[in-house]
Amino acid sequence: MNADMEKIWGKTFAKRTEKIKSSVIRELLKITQQPDIISFAGGLPAPELFPIREIEEACRYLLPRLGQKMLQYSPTEGIQQLKEFLAEKMQKYGVPAEPENILPTHGSQQALDLIGKVFINEGDKILTSRPTYLGAIQAWNAYAPEYMTVRMDDHGMTVDEMEEILKNHKIKFIYVLPNFHNPAGVTLSLERRKKITELAEKYDTFIVEDDPYGELRYEGEDLPTLISMKKERVIYLSTFSKTLAPGLRLAWITAPSFVIKKLVQAKQGADLHTGTFVQYIAWDVADRGIIKAHVKKIREVYKRRRDLMLEAMEKYFPKKGVKWTRPEGGMFLWVILPEGVDTAKLLEKAVERKVAYVPGFAFYPNADDGHNTMRLNFSNASEENIVEGIKRLGELLKEELGEK
Amino acid sequence: MNADMEKIWGKTFAKRTEKIKSSVIRELLKITQQPDIISFAGGLPAPELFPIREIEEACRYLLPRLGQKMLQYSPTEGIQQLKEFLAEKMQKYGVPAEPENILPTHGSQQALDLIGKVFINEGDKILTSRPTYLGAIQAWNAYAPEYMTVRMDDHGMTVDEMEEILKNHKIKFIYVLPNFHNPAGVTLSLERRKKITELAEKYDTFIVEDDPYGELRYEGEDLPTLISMKKERVIYLSTFSKTLAPGLRLAWITAPSFVIKKLVQAKQGADLHTGTFVQYIAWDVADRGIIKAHVKKIREVYKRRRDLMLEAMEKYFPKKGVKWTRPEGGMFLWVILPEGVDTAKLLEKAVERKVAYVPGFAFYPNADDGHNTMRLNFSNASEENIVEGIKRLGELLKEELGEK
Repeated sequence: MNADMEKIWGKTFAKRTEKIKSSVIRELLKITQQPDIISFAGGLPAPELFPIREIEEACRYLLPRLGQKMLQYSPTEGIQQLKEFLAEKMQKYGVPAEPENILPTHGSQQALDLIGKVFINEGDKILTSRPTYLGAIQAWNAYAPEYMTVRMDDHGMTVDEMEEILKNHKIKFIYVLPNFHNPAGVTLSLERRKKITELAEKYDTFIVEDDPYGELRYEGEDLPTLISMKKERVIYLSTFSKTLAPGLRLAWITAPSFVIKKLVQAKQGADLHTGTFVQYIAWDVADRGIIKAHVKKIREVYKRRRDLMLEAMEKYFPKKGVKWTRPEGGMFLWVILPEGVDTAKLLEKAVERKVAYVPGFAFYPNADDGHNTMRLNFSNASEENIVEGIKRLGELLKEELGEK
Repeated sequence: MNADMEKIWGKTFAKRTEKIKSSVIRELLKITQQPDIISFAGGLPAPELFPIREIEEACRYLLPRLGQKMLQYSPTEGIQQLKEFLAEKMQKYGVPAEPENILPTHGSQQALDLIGKVFINEGDKILTSRPTYLGAIQAWNAYAPEYMTVRMDDHGMTVDEMEEILKNHKIKFIYVLPNFHNPAGVTLSLERRKKITELAEKYDTFIVEDDPYGELRYEGEDLPTLISMKKERVIYLSTFSKTLAPGLRLAWITAPSFVIKKLVQAKQGADLHTGTFVQYIAWDVADRGIIKAHVKKIREVYKRRRDLMLEAMEKYFPKKGVKWTRPEGGMFLWVILPEGVDTAKLLEKAVERKVAYVPGFAFYPNADDGHNTMRLNFSNASEENIVEGIKRLGELLKEELGEK
């Protein structure tokens, strides 16, 4: 049967389909989905914190009153109430946004895809950090760009290499994850934020600022977003997935209205519009101040989990040649092991011990890098499981590094 | 400000962005959105029929029980319960589908986009009817195919020309709207269904069967779907938008699992997965038999509206050289006026009289055709407005054709 299918369909796929193959990582992660495993591999919020009752209240309140609108087709541009709410929210963060600067999308993943569709020609060069967010690479690979990368340190993506690259290459855009970087866990310093926006202007390019975790800060001071510094050259992405619930698939783009118009046209062809029903629910929940209260709660819980994970790592992880980041927020931390350790191979042994992580090589757009790194998620597992999982992982690493 | 934006962004758009310009039609339709207009232009279901209470019940029942799952990330492949329901539904229609043959999407529009992404290389040839569904053209234009078209008659797309084209061109796929064609209102005959599936095999191509209205039949017998005749060469699309509510943005693809796998990979990059929340709601509502009962109600109401529109057209429309289709189901009928009438120009006058339609040229993929045609929607307006609107339109047409 499959041979027949291969014969009929095998040669019909578009060239780009080669580039949108399922990632190695996805296959790898399948082995981590056994029910009794302690997984630090995903990027899931803690489901026990979801404001389920409040969302049910929103349904119960809204449907009898606005049901006919909530269930009908709606404009590609998004529903006005939600856009007004989001524009105001952006204003509070120092971005003079109006509803015409906002486009609700089916998650930030769709925002990344629409940006790819609207901007990337085959061979266009995108400047990003190494490591960088896997989902962006997956979205953009369908449009066949090249990636130019700069290394990261404790203050985020480095800017010295960046100017070299900008000087020598026409860069379509710079992709920046400013806060609590996924996967690296670090936050871009204020100085570098300024520098990157200056470079974007100097070399006449633009910035895609991807900020899903900005509100999940557990210590230190909020830093201004890049869009607040140079709004005419930044497309800013944020989402309800981390502050409310990812199952709604709701995020938004903030950009110059000139750009939003093009993104709207692309979205019209891509899926007509974002779900009317979920836009109304998110608007109601946000408008009643529930997200604000909810974020406060998440911050407390995730901070505790982060602290617990860091403590456990201190206690159980080998020390020699092993480093990890101490994120000020977000959901991930990043471990760098000694050169020569292959975290992809090691994953099998970890899974045997019922603990999982994401091998870091997956986050390097130009392959063959980061083999000695791993990403750990601290938002999803229970406190008990965090300690137990880190203990198991620490023991494995110690054996692997010959410390035991 | 806009000049500045043009300067910064104007040259950065990808080449394909030219092709995904907002359609002329969209601009035209903006003038039809005045509140006091009787619009036959949209393709909206009747909102007063939405099963609002039943959807609220689903929220109230499901959230306390399955809230943590409904609000969490879920597999790109879709939630198992919904896929099982849909596979069974397809089986009832003679398609031996399993859950692995089903992929839930954000509306059929996303299904069309994913098909474009996975299959269309620049310059690939797609065979479709003229006229054809506008949304498909919008989705696929981003991938820059060529369109080869065959004319339609009262029995759907014609097959004589089709074989000529298949003989002389490598066709990537044949796009078929079998039931109550949008915009033409006609249904593909059984004989032609068979013929098209045979042609697909003979010329080693495949079929995209787009069937949003299949369940909305008001008279006559259901005809077998093309996928039930040759499941190994058909990608079949259907949706909850017409039978439940478009605001949920929920549709599904049925195809060989070999093809579903590729579509899943593309969807992963496009938006990660279809909203978990709405998948659960649709599953619950469908599983409780509510959609079935709802479809029965819709059929009655839409049939009455269709009949009323046809009666009013009989009464008010000019006769000489004017033809229209009598659809056995769906939401649209199609009017052909004498050569020389330009329905795009006429729309302005219609809007002055507070009635609107879609000029038919919009449905011709290779432009410059169908200037004397229009599409009328009969599902959305009230009975009173249908009669009044057709009266106004009839009077305008009579004046235009000099019958008054």
